[in-house]
Amino acid sequence: MEKETGRIEGFSDGVFAIAITLLVLDLHVPEKDSIKSGNDLLIFIKNQWPTFLAFILSFFSIFIMWVNHHKIFKQIYTRNTGIMFANGLILFLVSAVSYPTALLAQYFNDEASSAVVAIYTGIFVLINLAFNLLWYLASKNKKHLRPGISDIAIRKIHNNYLYGLPIYIFALVFSFWIPAISLLIILGLWIFWALSSGKIEMSMKE
Amino acid sequence: MEKETGRIEGFSDGVFAIAITLLVLDLHVPEKDSIKSGNDLLIFIKNQWPTFLAFILSFFSIFIMWVNHHKIFKQIYTRNTGIMFANGLILFLVSAVSYPTALLAQYFNDEASSAVVAIYTGIFVLINLAFNLLWYLASKNKKHLRPGISDIAIRKIHNNYLYGLPIYIFALVFSFWIPAISLLIILGLWIFWALSSGKIEMSMKE
Amino acid sequence: MEKETGRIEGFSDGVFAIAITLLVLDLHVPEKDSIKSGNDLLIFIKNQWPTFLAFILSFFSIFIMWVNHHKIFKQIYTRNTGIMFANGLILFLVSAVSYPTALLAQYFNDEASSAVVAIYTGIFVLINLAFNLLWYLASKNKKHLRPGISDIAIRKIHNNYLYGLPIYIFALVFSFWIPAISLLIILGLWIFWALSSGKIEMSMKE
Amino acid sequence: MEKETGRIEGFSDGVFAIAITLLVLDLHVPEKDSIKSGNDLLIFIKNQWPTFLAFILSFFSIFIMWVNHHKIFKQIYTRNTGIMFANGLILFLVSAVSYPTALLAQYFNDEASSAVVAIYTGIFVLINLAFNLLWYLASKNKKHLRPGISDIAIRKIHNNYLYGLPIYIFALVFSFWIPAISLLIILGLWIFWALSSGKIEMSMKE
Repeated sequence: MEKETGRIEGFSDGVFAIAITLLVLDLHVPEKDSIKSGNDLLIFIKNQWPTFLAFILSFFSIFIMWVNHHKIFKQIYTRNTGIMFANGLILFLVSAVSYPTALLAQYFNDEASSAVVAIYTGIFVLINLAFNLLWYLASKNKKHLRPGISDIAIRKIHNNYLYGLPIYIFALVFSFWIPAISLLIILGLWIFWALSSGKIEMSMKE
Repeated sequence: MEKETGRIEGFSDGVFAIAITLLVLDLHVPEKDSIKSGNDLLIFIKNQWPTFLAFILSFFSIFIMWVNHHKIFKQIYTRNTGIMFANGLILFLVSAVSYPTALLAQYFNDEASSAVVAIYTGIFVLINLAFNLLWYLASKNKKHLRPGISDIAIRKIHNNYLYGLPIYIFALVFSFWIPAISLLIILGLWIFWALSSGKIEMSMKE
Repeated sequence: MEKETGRIEGFSDGVFAIAITLLVLDLHVPEKDSIKSGNDLLIFIKNQWPTFLAFILSFFSIFIMWVNHHKIFKQIYTRNTGIMFANGLILFLVSAVSYPTALLAQYFNDEASSAVVAIYTGIFVLINLAFNLLWYLASKNKKHLRPGISDIAIRKIHNNYLYGLPIYIFALVFSFWIPAISLLIILGLWIFWALSSGKIEMSMKE
Repeated sequence: MEKETGRIEGFSDGVFAIAITLLVLDLHVPEKDSIKSGNDLLIFIKNQWPTFLAFILSFFSIFIMWVNHHKIFKQIYTRNTGIMFANGLILFLVSAVSYPTALLAQYFNDEASSAVVAIYTGIFVLINLAFNLLWYLASKNKKHLRPGISDIAIRKIHNNYLYGLPIYIFALVFSFWIPAISLLIILGLWIFWALSSGKIEMSMKE
């Protein structure tokens, strides 16, 4: 069976690549007259640490999502309208990540800290739901999948995304108490996924 | 016969992907001193609803256009200057969508509401015309099309775009009375196309 | 012989696609308080006509350059450092086009009109020189070209770029008298190239 | 053995292409009322020379990095989590280059000159380290590499990156004395790499 999802992957890669590279536009250079010495510049940069933290966090989260997207589409061979639009939903949310990132960058140090962390973790809850939807729609009927894929492999991908959901929701709820912890949870989840992704792939090849 | 439109599709995909991802740059973060609490932030975001509406509307409209572009070029195998420039016109208009989107975002709630909705629906009228032109130029001579494509399939694509035209013009005219209805018409047309696109494709495969 | 310039073409297409799509960022939405009615908006847009003219002119010029780039690389099969950097120079200048475009948009109607048109036509002189350099380096040694390419075809491409040079320089010089004429010359050259490009391609296939 | 790094290369090319093209956004058009004649414009542009220098320097440095990235991935056939994330680190740093570029553009002529050159050279030290890490992880186990690659070829790539490191660190340290020299060192290194890259490739083919 020929894989007919090539151009979707190409388009999706484009959106991921642009979304991830546009994040840098949120790093702002200080106003010309505000900097009188190298020291002023270092102080400015130091005070902007939430901006850099948000940049790094969002860059690697989009990167891991791209890796996961890649992995899912290696198993999807044909498409229908549902798959197209679940994928469109993922791309929409990924392209939108830079907005919560900019909010986080500007307000993490402020009274609005809980609100921005809630919005930031909230978009990852939505992206997780969209990935779950994509895999649900694609795996509902095995004719969309790579011929010969095992049920165990299907279930492993399914579980991988499903397990993320309660943790993201937990991080979202936690943002109203100690927002910093929410970010740590998200960071931890990404490290877990980076490591586990190797294992899932291995089991795909079996 | 070898398909020689591969690099055109790649370039077009790039323009679609960039145009769709740049839309997020119109979501503006509030000025630092204007937000004193999480509540202020929510009020700011709530007041900005036309911005988010415009973002969502434009994202999915470009996405559907990309799906349609994809579908048309699956049937086009060779090109000439006319096809190249009809495609260039589509890309030009698609890349320009972010401007009417920004106008809509900023003025939908204002006295200029009719004007911005007219401009916004106007660009979709133009894009529809450009798609009609592309298919007219490509299907005029069957040697540009996929070998073995049936006349019914050609007419179906033709009709699909032609039927959209009066509805877009209707939405454009309506924007001078109740602009919100115009946006609903466009939204409805997209849902119709998303659903019907599955059917056309099916008939292509027959 | 295997074509080994595929990834260069892909990367170049990416730069062309991004450069062409970023042009839209120069279309500015009016300040919120400056627009009180739909009429105000139309007046604002009418006054901004140089911005829209510059946008259209630059979009289609980059588009035609992409078509030409495409055409040249269909004949180049292997690369060396010289070809890589001549191509890098083209990409550099193409990515820079948005700056003279923005200058043209803002100052075409002003006392600085001659200066901005000179800069604008100047960058096209440079791009023309870079294309000449690329073809000179690639065709100097036939081993870099498509096997079986005829000497006539090589000379035709060569002439096509060489003939453009004096016209661009003429437009550049003219910008100090009547800048509008310079833009018309450039526009005319693009139409000529769009039409002639079909013919060159045909002769390539013979 | 099938090469399974194709989609990584495509995604990486996208990020390189976008990062290189976004640099132009740092070229600012003068405020409307500040320019009264063509002469004013030329003075404005002349005073902005660090901006143009930074633009050119960063464009060609990202371009050479892309050439090198291309060259390395021609030798990498399979991937693991380590390779994926070393590549992600390179992409992160490359996408971030525009920030130090903007700092350099704005402050090279100021008291903060040393600080911005140190940050600018600093990011190239980091990128060099990331390339070293990528090649270390990929070449540690020959099963990831192109079948039949010679030990000499592996060592040559290794040395090519390793030798760059002390020079970059030297440029970084020098930025605290005469920042202009640091930029010249980086420029010299790029010219060296551009020339030497041809030779390495040749030895790859043997």
